[in-house]
Amino acid sequence: MKRIRVAVDMDEVIADTYGAMLNWLRHRHGARWSTEALHGRQIFDVLELDTAEALRTAMHDGAFFANLPVIEGSQAALSEIAARYELFVTSAAMEFPNSLGPKFLWLRRHFPFVEPLNIVFCGDKSIISADCLIDDNARHFKRFAGQGIVFSSPHNALVSGYPRIHRWDEALAVLSDVFPGAL
Amino acid sequence: MKRIRVAVDMDEVIADTYGAMLNWLRHRHGARWSTEALHGRQIFDVLELDTAEALRTAMHDGAFFANLPVIEGSQAALSEIAARYELFVTSAAMEFPNSLGPKFLWLRRHFPFVEPLNIVFCGDKSIISADCLIDDNARHFKRFAGQGIVFSSPHNALVSGYPRIHRWDEALAVLSDVFPGAL
Repeated sequence: MKRIRVAVDMDEVIADTYGAMLNWLRHRHGARWSTEALHGRQIFDVLELDTAEALRTAMHDGAFFANLPVIEGSQAALSEIAARYELFVTSAAMEFPNSLGPKFLWLRRHFPFVEPLNIVFCGDKSIISADCLIDDNARHFKRFAGQGIVFSSPHNALVSGYPRIHRWDEALAVLSDVFPGAL
Repeated sequence: MKRIRVAVDMDEVIADTYGAMLNWLRHRHGARWSTEALHGRQIFDVLELDTAEALRTAMHDGAFFANLPVIEGSQAALSEIAARYELFVTSAAMEFPNSLGPKFLWLRRHFPFVEPLNIVFCGDKSIISADCLIDDNARHFKRFAGQGIVFSSPHNALVSGYPRIHRWDEALAVLSDVFPGAL
């Protein structure tokens, strides 16, 4: 039987890019940017134009992505997913091309059990052939042929219509619901 | 009607990586490596172990990929493909992670009409969801769900069983054969 293929996004799903962005904002602009202020909204939709541009400039330096914290529970969960399903990590990275090398090295360091050949850097995720995609951006699900599964992040708090993983310790149970009898 | 999606490989298809490898070998080891010597064989299968290792080391420096020559006719052909089909460039890049950034910049420089969101760096190309894949490595076709199309390179001279593009000026005709009536 063909194994179920699970694709997992990187930023704000296994890498705490969001936290690093908030830290950058707080460091430059004080405490006014909180997780609460971003409830249901994309960070770049909330910022003033010059702040957004300064943040983008910081992110164009690949170093921004080299030392991102790992999202809690993601290593244990992905290790279990890799044992039960066919695991790919699929990251939309083309907006910040200098992040490509640092992202690859970050994955090798923190997720050494993910096969390098199963790492994908892309833009439009409709190119991904997988049974499901665990991603914080539901916009990627619109043209994706498989099942979208939302991974919770403040900006997607208002998104509905997809199975949702709130924390990584729920992931195996959600996958078992989506693919009953697959194991 | 949904547009036909055409995925095109990079190395030895639009970027003359093979020529750069031969140049590197000739520069270090003289004229013994010719295109003829590599007829039907992968370059790394032909080299002595220490030469292969030295070449891999050179390729791990991203600079190797920064200034590759463009394969003749590929810019005009891809421009026409982008006008008629949905074009993605899908490169297996994970063996040489330092090539990721230089490859992206190379594409932007030589193929500015390729949408950045339609660029994919991957390893196992079974992750690619496309109607066809133009690639010099037929091994990628084994698990690819769409139609594989071989792009000629000395190493694949003995490969059969797939439509073949010998030079880029044949590409549109081959695609019209593979997808009749798609335009």
